[in-house]
Amino acid sequence: MERLRLGMVGGGQGAFIGGVHRIAARIDGQWDLVAGALSSDAGRAAASAAELGIAADRSYADFQQMAEAEAARADGIHAVAIVTPNHMHAAPAVAFLRAGIHVICDKPLAATSEQASEIAQAVRESGKQFILTHNYTAYPLIRQAQAMVAAGELGEIRVVQVEYAQDWLTEEAHNKQADWRTDPARSGAGGCVGDIGTHAFNLASFVTGLEATSLAADLEAFVPGRKVDDNVHVMLRFKGGAKGMLWASQVAVGNENALRLRVHGTRGGLDWSQENPNQMSFTRFGKPKQILTRGGAGANDTGLRTTRIPPGHPEGYLEGFATLYSEAAHLIRHADFGTPLPEGVHAPTIEDGLDGMRFIAACIASSKADAAWTSLAR
Amino acid sequence: MERLRLGMVGGGQGAFIGGVHRIAARIDGQWDLVAGALSSDAGRAAASAAELGIAADRSYADFQQMAEAEAARADGIHAVAIVTPNHMHAAPAVAFLRAGIHVICDKPLAATSEQASEIAQAVRESGKQFILTHNYTAYPLIRQAQAMVAAGELGEIRVVQVEYAQDWLTEEAHNKQADWRTDPARSGAGGCVGDIGTHAFNLASFVTGLEATSLAADLEAFVPGRKVDDNVHVMLRFKGGAKGMLWASQVAVGNENALRLRVHGTRGGLDWSQENPNQMSFTRFGKPKQILTRGGAGANDTGLRTTRIPPGHPEGYLEGFATLYSEAAHLIRHADFGTPLPEGVHAPTIEDGLDGMRFIAACIASSKADAAWTSLAR
Amino acid sequence: MERLRLGMVGGGQGAFIGGVHRIAARIDGQWDLVAGALSSDAGRAAASAAELGIAADRSYADFQQMAEAEAARADGIHAVAIVTPNHMHAAPAVAFLRAGIHVICDKPLAATSEQASEIAQAVRESGKQFILTHNYTAYPLIRQAQAMVAAGELGEIRVVQVEYAQDWLTEEAHNKQADWRTDPARSGAGGCVGDIGTHAFNLASFVTGLEATSLAADLEAFVPGRKVDDNVHVMLRFKGGAKGMLWASQVAVGNENALRLRVHGTRGGLDWSQENPNQMSFTRFGKPKQILTRGGAGANDTGLRTTRIPPGHPEGYLEGFATLYSEAAHLIRHADFGTPLPEGVHAPTIEDGLDGMRFIAACIASSKADAAWTSLAR
Amino acid sequence: MERLRLGMVGGGQGAFIGGVHRIAARIDGQWDLVAGALSSDAGRAAASAAELGIAADRSYADFQQMAEAEAARADGIHAVAIVTPNHMHAAPAVAFLRAGIHVICDKPLAATSEQASEIAQAVRESGKQFILTHNYTAYPLIRQAQAMVAAGELGEIRVVQVEYAQDWLTEEAHNKQADWRTDPARSGAGGCVGDIGTHAFNLASFVTGLEATSLAADLEAFVPGRKVDDNVHVMLRFKGGAKGMLWASQVAVGNENALRLRVHGTRGGLDWSQENPNQMSFTRFGKPKQILTRGGAGANDTGLRTTRIPPGHPEGYLEGFATLYSEAAHLIRHADFGTPLPEGVHAPTIEDGLDGMRFIAACIASSKADAAWTSLAR
Repeated sequence: MERLRLGMVGGGQGAFIGGVHRIAARIDGQWDLVAGALSSDAGRAAASAAELGIAADRSYADFQQMAEAEAARADGIHAVAIVTPNHMHAAPAVAFLRAGIHVICDKPLAATSEQASEIAQAVRESGKQFILTHNYTAYPLIRQAQAMVAAGELGEIRVVQVEYAQDWLTEEAHNKQADWRTDPARSGAGGCVGDIGTHAFNLASFVTGLEATSLAADLEAFVPGRKVDDNVHVMLRFKGGAKGMLWASQVAVGNENALRLRVHGTRGGLDWSQENPNQMSFTRFGKPKQILTRGGAGANDTGLRTTRIPPGHPEGYLEGFATLYSEAAHLIRHADFGTPLPEGVHAPTIEDGLDGMRFIAACIASSKADAAWTSLAR
Repeated sequence: MERLRLGMVGGGQGAFIGGVHRIAARIDGQWDLVAGALSSDAGRAAASAAELGIAADRSYADFQQMAEAEAARADGIHAVAIVTPNHMHAAPAVAFLRAGIHVICDKPLAATSEQASEIAQAVRESGKQFILTHNYTAYPLIRQAQAMVAAGELGEIRVVQVEYAQDWLTEEAHNKQADWRTDPARSGAGGCVGDIGTHAFNLASFVTGLEATSLAADLEAFVPGRKVDDNVHVMLRFKGGAKGMLWASQVAVGNENALRLRVHGTRGGLDWSQENPNQMSFTRFGKPKQILTRGGAGANDTGLRTTRIPPGHPEGYLEGFATLYSEAAHLIRHADFGTPLPEGVHAPTIEDGLDGMRFIAACIASSKADAAWTSLAR
Repeated sequence: MERLRLGMVGGGQGAFIGGVHRIAARIDGQWDLVAGALSSDAGRAAASAAELGIAADRSYADFQQMAEAEAARADGIHAVAIVTPNHMHAAPAVAFLRAGIHVICDKPLAATSEQASEIAQAVRESGKQFILTHNYTAYPLIRQAQAMVAAGELGEIRVVQVEYAQDWLTEEAHNKQADWRTDPARSGAGGCVGDIGTHAFNLASFVTGLEATSLAADLEAFVPGRKVDDNVHVMLRFKGGAKGMLWASQVAVGNENALRLRVHGTRGGLDWSQENPNQMSFTRFGKPKQILTRGGAGANDTGLRTTRIPPGHPEGYLEGFATLYSEAAHLIRHADFGTPLPEGVHAPTIEDGLDGMRFIAACIASSKADAAWTSLAR
Repeated sequence: MERLRLGMVGGGQGAFIGGVHRIAARIDGQWDLVAGALSSDAGRAAASAAELGIAADRSYADFQQMAEAEAARADGIHAVAIVTPNHMHAAPAVAFLRAGIHVICDKPLAATSEQASEIAQAVRESGKQFILTHNYTAYPLIRQAQAMVAAGELGEIRVVQVEYAQDWLTEEAHNKQADWRTDPARSGAGGCVGDIGTHAFNLASFVTGLEATSLAADLEAFVPGRKVDDNVHVMLRFKGGAKGMLWASQVAVGNENALRLRVHGTRGGLDWSQENPNQMSFTRFGKPKQILTRGGAGANDTGLRTTRIPPGHPEGYLEGFATLYSEAAHLIRHADFGTPLPEGVHAPTIEDGLDGMRFIAACIASSKADAAWTSLAR
């Protein structure tokens, strides 16, 4: 099967997440990166493209030009990956969608709800695939957890505890990653809540299948002078009566990237941590706790589907991310070539993106209203 | 040094916490149990006393009679341990205090704030020692953590995450322990919030030394028909600007007695879990995480003071509890005999008890008001 | 039920294990310490006795005098605890046994095989109880593990991996504990192999129920000038074909008291570590690993019998040790008063002591013969 | 920079390790797979090639033909990956080396020492690069550990404990992976000792930099009818006086792929486990244990060099394997194009392969001689 052709907007030299997308796209051999508008700085764009083996004539000075040129080529890209800061998602996303090119977009969806709506409208109008890289939902054990909950193995869900703790913004920081994330003009009004809070919220929503209906949030910017929140405390209520807590922090000293999800139902409980993603504990009420491993004894088909290597051979962050690129390939081959869609293909959509924007907005509104309950109604 | 004489109210056959108090009292050889009103059932009281080697003439049918008789004896008890259900703390506590006998009382302080006030008044008027067995504060590493925070090793505290998860009340349960804890007439209006929420709140307050000023709580009784809460979600605000979350649950399948405290400051972070209490992680910002062990490398004097055996030889719940009995012995020897008080002696007081009652009341009030911020002002 | 009366030889001020024995004897309320020859230094013996509330007339200058005097008293001790260095086990053990007093003796049994034989002969001739404090066999999960193996839950045992790593003798050390343990005149010819290697060997033997038939050992004294081994490598062969490895070290930097046992059979595997003794992993072949907890779901009667408090409330080293004192009380009440022996009572015996001495001797002989296979035949 | 061209021998449909090599080759974008003799079955070879996007004219029926044809092409492969069972390493390795093509070869080096010598001779005569995929040495924390030991951070090494436990061969198994590994004609005389024992030995040798001089081994085939060992017990002696133990097992129920290395020196100790490879504990004698994370606080340049993404974002088995492909690319670009070799490039060589063969042979010889000490002299 021929590889799909990928373009990229953003991700030039010095970027973090662009490199992750490129590795993720390579892992399963479904994609070739052939075009890019890798930087708004023309020199850096060209140098970055050269380093990556992108032909000079497909290294573009801006995304608009790229969308048009690639749409016009017989060998144009099938999809573009947008890996720019939040405020620069909407314009390229809309441009490529209108040019008939599928979009793989980093999260959160956008810096503002207006931008988010523009993207959503373009998705609807174009009918093109739009994949939001909430990569944590693609870990095999998370897929397995989602299927276990859906199959009723935990009974009716009561309590959802999700947390995402980091410490890299404990002090005032100045570097490429920190700068835009703490600048409301580029990150949006949410800081930590947008950067990692949305991951936590998305993960909890995905695994439980529950719709959060309202939240009470207490956001704080602990570092003096910081313009966006760096610690997020949220209480959640879900349709059907489940309740939850969400904690996201970028000032929790002692944490690198500690995303953890716990789900407790009437019949069972799950506990998974991203930093050691190849195991998950599962307890049926009244029985000994089980340690489920990726691909090991007790793995279900949903988990196995996204597993590459045997249990005990750890897969990590990049493999999870790669699964989204493979899912994207499935979806796009199906859309463009009618290739049958394998059972179980899943990737976060524009709806997940809009949910994330609503989550950010509700957190900020609630926090401003002294943690008043705020609706998340779609 | 002669042993102190201890009496006990409650703790007859079939009880849980009474047995714990007795082992705790024995461990360091500071106490002899010599009198008791072990059960409101006369037969059970006598049988229980006989089993425990209490002389028949010091096994009393009721606590009032016991308080009077013991106060009148030359060899009367120095202190009484009250290990009855919550609603039965106040009456005996007041009786013994008025009889001039020191009191060691199980937590929470009482079932109602009125009862709590009566005890507090009796403590003030009697001038006797009153020790509340918030036993988790007596773990050596918790003592060490408290001293580390106080010494500024974590910098200024920003975030406090405390949780206490159990699953034994996941379903409707009927047994001696469950019955009174889910009966508002005996437990007070709080269920989970009083039984274990107060432990979590007390632990966080003790270690951080911070005063919680207000909270927003969302309490739930998940089990159909249950009259008290079994899951507790709380957001906390502390004087000075720190913020926290507290989760207590008795329906979190997969948890036995999972009390965990995390404290994050400007310079460092701590993480301790009760189920493996002999280690604690400590991270100075920008440095590798350290695993501190009870009595091991990095132990401070405060932690070492309450340590009995070398690192790697685990101490547990009973030793922590026993430390409170040793602290009580120090305090009572000092009060009664003028024995010098060693540096560092600490035991939870009536003030901790009142704080716990305010915590319960505020949680209930906040939850009834849809999680409105509610003051904890003393 | 009246408490039994205990005497102690050794354990004066500054000792470690004597204090452990005393706490262990107190925990379950079965013993009163009433007599002692606590030190060979008369002043220290008297001062130590006074501190412990031992009447002056029952603080003896030497064990011989104590054995005679206590045997002659109507209220003489039921048993004596011998907590001296290894070379001082045999003489008091023989004296008390001959005086008709039961003996609880620290491990290893003796410093030499001659001494061991003398004790064994005295045990046989006296018919008295002799309990060797291989305390690690008394942890509830170890009792549970033994019963699981015996019940065939692991199938036929194939591989036994046991290790006991410490680092406190990494450098030349001079203190009361280190001095006698590194002096062959007091510890016997084995250093690490006797002090902790015997614990590891005893634990593996107890849990598996297998008889080790031969071993190949490579002992080393890594610290310059040390006269006894501080690192022990052993390969083991068991009757029936199982094989094992044993590692004991007192120079393994990063280890406090890391005793760990793994047992693998045709149907299942177990893994337990002493530093967190309240959990054990158990895997049935082809099934998810289970985390068994002390007293929790999956506990068997054998484990529950020695459990004091609910799961999640950690018991530790002292409780395990205390169980041996409770078992001793059962055995002695049965022997002396005909009290029925509860099902499941177990304590290490003189035979375990002799096995340990054979293990030490075989390790030393094998190591001298360049790790030649050496018989452990009884 | 242009990608290097890779060929593959073995790795057709149904293979495990071939797929791993292909992902590993893709991850860092240094290689394109363009040719293959993927199976000895012509139909499967062609189908496999088609699936992988290999042009039909570069899918070969046999490796000899492939070596010749590729050597003759202007756009021939730069290197070949040999991913066949052990007995099929030598013939293709020799063929490609003689054809002037670099070789990346799976481990162990060969099924027999004769085959190993043939490869070694071909390497010497050809002057071509030969990389043996002992992939575990490429984990960033293992690289870091090696550098820490070399820098003296552990002092003089005394004790090396390495183990590699699996359970997938606990029962008689029949599948593509099990069949050849338990067939001496294909695996060589060693079973478990060759398949995973060599990994453990290589890892210990790499990290410590110590040369093992002799060993005493006790090998066992526990599963009835099995023709090769499935459990390996080894005592090791190293030049300079360090001692070690190695345990490898494929019948240790409860283990998936549990490779663990512990190194203890006069000043410090390390502990690393493959199943959670993103952390390692490190203890300086007398100081608290530190948890070092891949790329986190305390990371050294050697570890960082092979790290792709920030700490807390787990890298796994495939990334470690990929590092060997990147190292191979560096070595080959240097050899073929004179591209400067970055500092710190490392990949296992033919010498590691020969050491592994000596290890296997010595284990088998020692075990046959009842675990007699057997030299590993090069």
